[in-house]
Formats: sequence, C-alpha cells, structure tokens
Amino acid sequence: MKIIGTRRDVLGTIGAGLVTGAIGLPACAQGKRKLGYAIVGLGSYATNQIMPRIKDCEFAELKALVSGTPAKLEKFGAEYGIPKTHWYNYKNYDRIRDNPDIDLVYVVLPNSMHAEYAIRASQAGKHVLCEKPMATSVAECEAMIAAAKKANRKLMIGYRCHFEQHNLHAVELVKTGFIGRPTLITSEHGFYAQPNQWRLDRPFSGGGSMMDIGIYSLNAARYLAGEEPVAVSAMEYTDKSDPRFKTVEDRIDWQMRFPSGVIANCVSSYSSNHNAFRVTGTKGWVGMEPATNYTGHQMWTRQGGSTEQVTLPPPAKNQFVAQLDHLAEVVQTGIPLRASGEEGLRDMRLIEAIYRSAREGRTIKLA
Amino acid sequence: MKIIGTRRDVLGTIGAGLVTGAIGLPACAQGKRKLGYAIVGLGSYATNQIMPRIKDCEFAELKALVSGTPAKLEKFGAEYGIPKTHWYNYKNYDRIRDNPDIDLVYVVLPNSMHAEYAIRASQAGKHVLCEKPMATSVAECEAMIAAAKKANRKLMIGYRCHFEQHNLHAVELVKTGFIGRPTLITSEHGFYAQPNQWRLDRPFSGGGSMMDIGIYSLNAARYLAGEEPVAVSAMEYTDKSDPRFKTVEDRIDWQMRFPSGVIANCVSSYSSNHNAFRVTGTKGWVGMEPATNYTGHQMWTRQGGSTEQVTLPPPAKNQFVAQLDHLAEVVQTGIPLRASGEEGLRDMRLIEAIYRSAREGRTIKLA
Repeated sequence: MKIIGTRRDVLGTIGAGLVTGAIGLPACAQGKRKLGYAIVGLGSYATNQIMPRIKDCEFAELKALVSGTPAKLEKFGAEYGIPKTHWYNYKNYDRIRDNPDIDLVYVVLPNSMHAEYAIRASQAGKHVLCEKPMATSVAECEAMIAAAKKANRKLMIGYRCHFEQHNLHAVELVKTGFIGRPTLITSEHGFYAQPNQWRLDRPFSGGGSMMDIGIYSLNAARYLAGEEPVAVSAMEYTDKSDPRFKTVEDRIDWQMRFPSGVIANCVSSYSSNHNAFRVTGTKGWVGMEPATNYTGHQMWTRQGGSTEQVTLPPPAKNQFVAQLDHLAEVVQTGIPLRASGEEGLRDMRLIEAIYRSAREGRTIKLA
Repeated sequence: MKIIGTRRDVLGTIGAGLVTGAIGLPACAQGKRKLGYAIVGLGSYATNQIMPRIKDCEFAELKALVSGTPAKLEKFGAEYGIPKTHWYNYKNYDRIRDNPDIDLVYVVLPNSMHAEYAIRASQAGKHVLCEKPMATSVAECEAMIAAAKKANRKLMIGYRCHFEQHNLHAVELVKTGFIGRPTLITSEHGFYAQPNQWRLDRPFSGGGSMMDIGIYSLNAARYLAGEEPVAVSAMEYTDKSDPRFKTVEDRIDWQMRFPSGVIANCVSSYSSNHNAFRVTGTKGWVGMEPATNYTGHQMWTRQGGSTEQVTLPPPAKNQFVAQLDHLAEVVQTGIPLRASGEEGLRDMRLIEAIYRSAREGRTIKLA
C-alpha cells in the first residue's frame, strides 16, 4: 500500500483550482461574508447529503428553502434555523429576487424541472448550482446557459467528482504520464433501482439509468481522457416486462473513441451494482473501485508489473463541501468556474448521441 | 480468502467433462495405449509450452515432429528422442498417413496455415487439434470441419481455458446463480506486441490483435454467458503511422448482446496489457485477473456486499496437459468432444462480424 504525501502534497498535484481558498485564509478573515444558498427541492439527496454539509463551508451558508410541501419547510426550517421569510414554494419562487440573503440557488429537483428552476433563478439575478444531469435535453441546457449569460450570473453543474481528491489524483496520474499513453478507459456505474421512484418515471427523469447513474461513467471517461470523444456506439437492454421499466431504459452500455485513440467502454445499469473505472495505458493503469461514491473510494495503480493500493490523506474539504464552496468562491473572487453549464451541455449532447446510437444501431460521429 | 474444498470437490463442481479420466484409472491400467501426437510447427509456443508438457499426459505421448527447418528437427528430435523416421517437413507431411504411431496431429502454425495443415491431417486419417484462431475465415473453418467429417476423424480447437479450473469454476458460479441474473460481462485481453513477428503480418496472421489475443475476450464472454450473442457492435483504433500496424489492427473493442439480456464489453489490444474478466449479476459478481494466463490465475467473488478472494487447490492436470489428453481420451473412449471445430467456427463468425461492424460503423445482428 502506498501512502501519498501530506494533504498539501496531494492538493499540490491536483491542479490549482481546488487549492485556492482551501489552504488560504477563511472568507471572514479576508473581510468577505459567506454567500447564502437557497436549496430548491427538499428530497432525500438535498436533505441527507447536501444540507447537513453546508455548515462546513468556508464561503457559503444555508439561507433559504424552496419546496412545494409546507411540512418540509416547517421541518427543515426549524432544523436549520431558517426563518419563514426565507421559505418559498414553487409559485412564489421568483420572489427570491427580492431577498438579498440569497446569492446562490442549488437546484436539486427531478431532472425535468432543472431547466425551469435554474432559468427562473438566473432571471431572479441569482447564481445557480444545478444537479446533474443538467436537464433532459440539449435544448434545455442551451436555454439555461443563455439565461445565465443574459443575467450575467454563474451557472455550475453538480459534478461533485470534480472536487473529490481520488478522482482528481487519478486524472493527474493519467495526465502526467504515469500509465504511459492511455489506450483504454473502462467506466462502470449502476445500481439496482427500486420501483416507484421518480427516477423511473420519464416525465420526471427524462430517461433511465443513463441520465441517473450512467452519467457518472460518461463524465468520468471524459475527465480521465482529458479530451472529447469523436464517435459513440451504444447497445441497450431493457426487459419491458419488468414493471420498473415502463417508460425508461434499464441498461445501456457504450463505447467512445477519443481523438488520441483512447477507447472508453462504459456501463450504465439499473439492474446491477457497478462503481468503478480504470484507465490503462502503454505502461500500466490506474483504477478505482468504488470510484465515485460519497465515501470509501479505493484506488490502485499498476506499473512495472506491480500493483499497489494508493491511500490518500484525508482531504481538506469533503467533495460536497468543496463543490458548494466553489461556486461561492468563484462569485467572490473571480477564480475560473469548474463544472460549468457548458460541461453539463457536453454530457447532454453525448447522452443524446448514446440514445440515438442504441436506437439506430449505428456509430454516431460527433463534430 | 476463501479456499475451496479438495481437488475432488472442485472437479465435482465443474462438470463431468473434465472429471472423466482425470480421476479414473490411467490409460495403461485400462489396457489402452497412449496415443501419439505429431506436432506441426516448432515455434516458440509449441516448443516452450506444449512439447515439454506432453510427458505429463495420461492418454497421449509425443511421437512425431513436422517442421520446415531441418535444424529444428535435429534439435527437438534429439531432445525428445523422436527418431528420424518420425520427422516430416511440409512437403512430405502427407506421408504421416503411413505412420501408425501418429494418431493425433497438433497444428501450431501461423494462423493462415491452420486450414491447409488441418485438412491434410484429416485427409491422412488423423485426428486434429488445431490452435486458435481456428483459421483466418469462416470459409476455411467450414472446409476444415467438412474435411474432418469426411475422414470420420475428430477436429478440436486449442481453447485451453476450457480446461483451466478457475475458468471452469467461474462458469459454474455463473451457471448456478451465485451472482443472480447476469447483466454485464467485461472481458479484456491485450499485450504490447513487439515488432517484426508473424502476428503483425496479415498474410500469416489473417488479422491483428483480435485474431491473436482478442479471441480470448470473445471466447470467455461466450463461455461465461453460456449462450450465443445476437448482436455485435465494434470500434477500432489503429495508428497507421506505427510501423507495427502496416497490415493489421492494433485495438478493437466491442459489445455483444446476448438473448437473456447480458451485454458484454470486450477489449482487444496490441498496445496495452489486459488479462481480466468479470461477470456481474443482480446479486454480485465473479472476476479473474489474470484470467487466462498460462499460470497465476487470481479469482474474486462479490456477494452480499463482501468481496472475497477465492483460492482453488492445485488442479489434477495443468490446462495444457488436460487439453492434450482430452482429444486422446475422446478418441479412445468416445466421451463428448469439447472445444470442437464448431466452437472455433462460432468464434470466427463473430470475429468477421466484429471486423465488419467496426468497418461499417453499425451494429451487426446475428442469426
């Protein structure tokens, strides 16, 4: 087992983006106030994963709640000390415009509502963090980008792995030639989807496993390759007699060819558990399993005939916290935005190409 | 780490095919003589892997050598005590017909010579074991099968993994439901091909990595699935400026969909090392890495959230020995032939479909 340096060493290897702020002075010490988030959609992900972590942010704090369910506003309002003046529902949502405590809006709604609520936030003059998939079509993504641009506000997509240290370290190992010239990426994500959830209902989800979990395989393949694919070919299998799959796909696996010659074999499944990637090159490989979970990442490298497990020291910031802080830091300091709307749009273009390839039984060439 | 039973237990789990003979009385004790092999082609694989192991066979022995290089006949004739009367070259090869010591012919020539030398052996009244790929085209495979049938002789293809206990155990775990309903097979094989070898010269090899090492990914996916694919989609990348790839492909990765809904993501590479497979199902997975090497197989299973390494006791027979013995035992006892010419033909049909899919950029549906 290989234990990699100190926290500072690791941060030093994963690019300046994450480092800024993380090892600088806290916002208050720099004379800045923390920016206020409104959370839109109080489902399981928002309430279990995001909201409990905002208190650990350096540049942001929780200031407002948006939900269509009054009981949720009562419950979480009390829990997080958010006054009634900072509770909104989907009808009076646009009034966030008049609340100066809200700087940032995090859209954590079902996929098909992303575009509308992100655009309304931009129009209200707020910066937006929107969960992935960015939306359910390329057209929606383009409208979201246009709305943010018109309002001169930031639009960020919730690609938390872009802020997770093992993932960033894997990217760095590939980029710095540890594995030689990359030839193959395998990227596999899936889980057994329980019935009766909005994720299985196309009007809410916009699609099946691809939109929900396959997007991790897709996005990881792209950040590991460090370039954009030029061709995609996909194969689907959905058992239409399974009541879970009345409107969405179960499994869709696909290949992507990148300009340098790397080929990615990717997996998306609602019927089996997968959470892994590996990048193989002419000299070795780097792999993770689990690769993109909330916690418990495990990493291995192989080079010169020897396989080693790599252990990184605890990160300065948990991936959720780092992501939440990033948008606030971008707004306050002007550092470059990572995981932008354009990044979400690139995935959505590929998702549409993957669906089309599977449907038409042919390789789709990308511009 | 899980250590699985005794040798007899393991053999008991992997089907009766391998057991027959392996735990029965030796041939001599059954009043049978060992059958005699002629080895055709004295290259590295024949002389380093096969010939040294024939002495461990229960039902077979080395009786004759065929080579176009007189010095090799001298060298290996002396080493293995094969008299000059049992040396042949490619011109007088057909005279093996008149040598009653030769029962079995093992064709270990470059791929493009398989068909001719297998057919001539059949015509000489000998049973044939032919290295994989069986030949370089479906048409050749069909001609080989027809020739063996006409001569009423056996034709077997050198799929040694069909005789390797870890591979057989993986097949058995999938078949008996250990992983639930299978959803995904990943099967990855490749190595960095050194320049100036016949494998890189299409007139000898008939193709690139697919013919040579990708066939392991293909064959493993089929035996792990336990069914035949209905669709195949492939993607190639070959750097034509690399002098190794003037006539053959470097990398070709492909997907196969099986009738049950399993999708296989397969890899073939002449530019990076791969030797692994994994079958994932609704309840867990079974995987190996290395999966199909000569030795050193490592196996893991995952079920109920726990991953275990599986250690099997030493096999009754090494995979090479078991394969060599199998044909002799089939001939002597009439047990069913495994790894038949039809099995080689099935792979060759798929290889042609894989090449065609990559060339035409579309999914090929199989009958």
